Amino acid sequence: MNLGAVAERLGISAERMEKILGRIVRPSDWPPPRLLRFDKAVAGIEAGTVVFDEDEIVFGYPKIRRAMMLDPALRRHFSSGVLVEEKMNGHNVRVARVGESTVALTRGGFICPYSTEVAREQIPPEIFRDHPDLVLSGEMVGPKNPYVPKEVYPAEAMDFYLFDTSRKGRRDLEGPLRTHALAEEYGIRAVRLFGEFGLQQAAAEIREIVRDLGARGREGVIVKDPENLARPIKYTSSESNCRDLEYAFRYYNDYGQDFFFSRVVREGFQAAEWAEGEAEFLERCLRLGRSMLTPMRETVEAKMVGEPIVQEVEILVRDLQTARDFEEHFRRMGVRAIFDPPRNSRGGHLVKIKRLVLSTNDKTESIVEGQLW
Amino acid sequence: MNLGAVAERLGISAERMEKILGRIVRPSDWPPPRLLRFDKAVAGIEAGTVVFDEDEIVFGYPKIRRAMMLDPALRRHFSSGVLVEEKMNGHNVRVARVGESTVALTRGGFICPYSTEVAREQIPPEIFRDHPDLVLSGEMVGPKNPYVPKEVYPAEAMDFYLFDTSRKGRRDLEGPLRTHALAEEYGIRAVRLFGEFGLQQAAAEIREIVRDLGARGREGVIVKDPENLARPIKYTSSESNCRDLEYAFRYYNDYGQDFFFSRVVREGFQAAEWAEGEAEFLERCLRLGRSMLTPMRETVEAKMVGEPIVQEVEILVRDLQTARDFEEHFRRMGVRAIFDPPRNSRGGHLVKIKRLVLSTNDKTESIVEGQLW
Repeated sequence: MNLGAVAERLGISAERMEKILGRIVRPSDWPPPRLLRFDKAVAGIEAGTVVFDEDEIVFGYPKIRRAMMLDPALRRHFSSGVLVEEKMNGHNVRVARVGESTVALTRGGFICPYSTEVAREQIPPEIFRDHPDLVLSGEMVGPKNPYVPKEVYPAEAMDFYLFDTSRKGRRDLEGPLRTHALAEEYGIRAVRLFGEFGLQQAAAEIREIVRDLGARGREGVIVKDPENLARPIKYTSSESNCRDLEYAFRYYNDYGQDFFFSRVVREGFQAAEWAEGEAEFLERCLRLGRSMLTPMRETVEAKMVGEPIVQEVEILVRDLQTARDFEEHFRRMGVRAIFDPPRNSRGGHLVKIKRLVLSTNDKTESIVEGQLW
Repeated sequence: MNLGAVAERLGISAERMEKILGRIVRPSDWPPPRLLRFDKAVAGIEAGTVVFDEDEIVFGYPKIRRAMMLDPALRRHFSSGVLVEEKMNGHNVRVARVGESTVALTRGGFICPYSTEVAREQIPPEIFRDHPDLVLSGEMVGPKNPYVPKEVYPAEAMDFYLFDTSRKGRRDLEGPLRTHALAEEYGIRAVRLFGEFGLQQAAAEIREIVRDLGARGREGVIVKDPENLARPIKYTSSESNCRDLEYAFRYYNDYGQDFFFSRVVREGFQAAEWAEGEAEFLERCLRLGRSMLTPMRETVEAKMVGEPIVQEVEILVRDLQTARDFEEHFRRMGVRAIFDPPRNSRGGHLVKIKRLVLSTNDKTESIVEGQLW
């Protein structure tokens, strides 16, 4: 790999490239192909950007900012109408063809062996034959998702849902119209498109969509500019905020405090903007309080009877080698986990994974034993 | 002031004293008398420690640690029985005689002119004539408390409640028995003593006391070793946690996230330890959720109609000079506030004070105007 050429492609100086190499840009030779990975954002280059070769660069998927108060945010951000898509609750991958193989990259720029297996099964290779430089950004969702232990979608394992496309070596996204056209042409599953709305009606329409999604356990929406001139923004349901909290409070000491705080603040703004009646507001208060205390009570109760606190997920692989590779992948990401032996199942092999949540374990244990705060 | 002698009295080297002077130990000459103030803890010396002269040192009041799970904490911390006192919700002051005058020091080691006026009115000077080196630690509580804008006690302005005694130049507290004996002897108001309990019954008794206090809007208890061998610990009611949250979420962006997080965690442990029934648990969840969302909703709604977010308190002074001094005191503490002109009232002069909460104001305003997160 010619580092000078890579730097030029990235739009940074060779000196800068030298400086960040090894610290921010980390080499990886497993699984193949060999790559450089941006661990953090630097010089305007998104974290998760991956360099396979000087002209084989997959830029990180740009962060989508959040509307806290929907109506004013839409009016400020977009110029005429908006397209509304479902925001799915899984993990974001970028799928690209590199050399002879299709790989799925996580947000951090790791090749995930498990997501890669799913991508190879579900994305027809013709799309890369026709567009060798295409990058498909999509959500991996389903009950056998090792990154997101929630079951909300009607799948048996994991599915790929396309939500954006871009090109290797380019930072810009191609926009929602191009994305849905490609999905249709090649028969790829895409996120649901709710439609296009004028700026006057958009907030009210989205509110109804988000309420309905929330009631069905779904996450929320991404709002996009049909002309692809403004960047997308996201907006989520109260139920999704609360489900996040419910999951995180089980491991309350292993999450950052801003994770909890930001979700409560979202609820406050939504309650104010939606000007709900007293009954609905109390329901929201109860939902929020419950989402925090129910899992914490369970964690403490488990520790009171001496049980360990573990985070359990499960994957379903076709190929046993994928499970072995996934274990190595977790190890390289710095995740500490115990993998059970694979069990045969319809559709492949099931592997149960227990992630260790050491901090919550230790903290809860010491308090249950009478430690002071 | 002889700095070498001061260092010796504090148990630190003269070099160290020199190093921290101006950075951690700050001089103050207003209001008189002149003093040195420990802004932070250093070398085992509590923050808030004040040096008037080499042998006139008032040590900071030691931090009282919190029981998260009452029963195991009591068993681990104390050796036989415990004394239980009410923890009052006000601000902690240390009152001492310096030269010819009585002064009240805040936790940070500032002389508070308002608390000093109250202390001079309510503490009989004989106690300092008999014990010139005495330091009275107590809580200033009442509806006219500029530091704690909550009304829970049956007073008209502020009252001093003694909860500990110590001596100038000494770090150790004299213990609950000595404290209540002195209070009785000199007719000083002291915090309520609920009684002495054996370690077997203490948790259950305290639980009932704390439940009852909570239901009446009170804060909780301080548990002390009757023999003064172990340090006191505190334990608070759910209602008090929630009232703190309710107050803080009104100014959600001006408080640290650990303020919110720690209170939620306390609720989780209390719910688990108290093993309450489902109805009671749901009531706790609703209380918690409401305490977060009600004030936030109000803050956002205020901004939606263009109102500023202010924190309003009121003081009642006998002497108009005290109000002027208190304004200067706030300025020196770095608090930005607007003082209204005094109004005559029964018992003195009322002054309304509006503290500026700039961060919450700005953040909420920008979101209401459509800023993204």
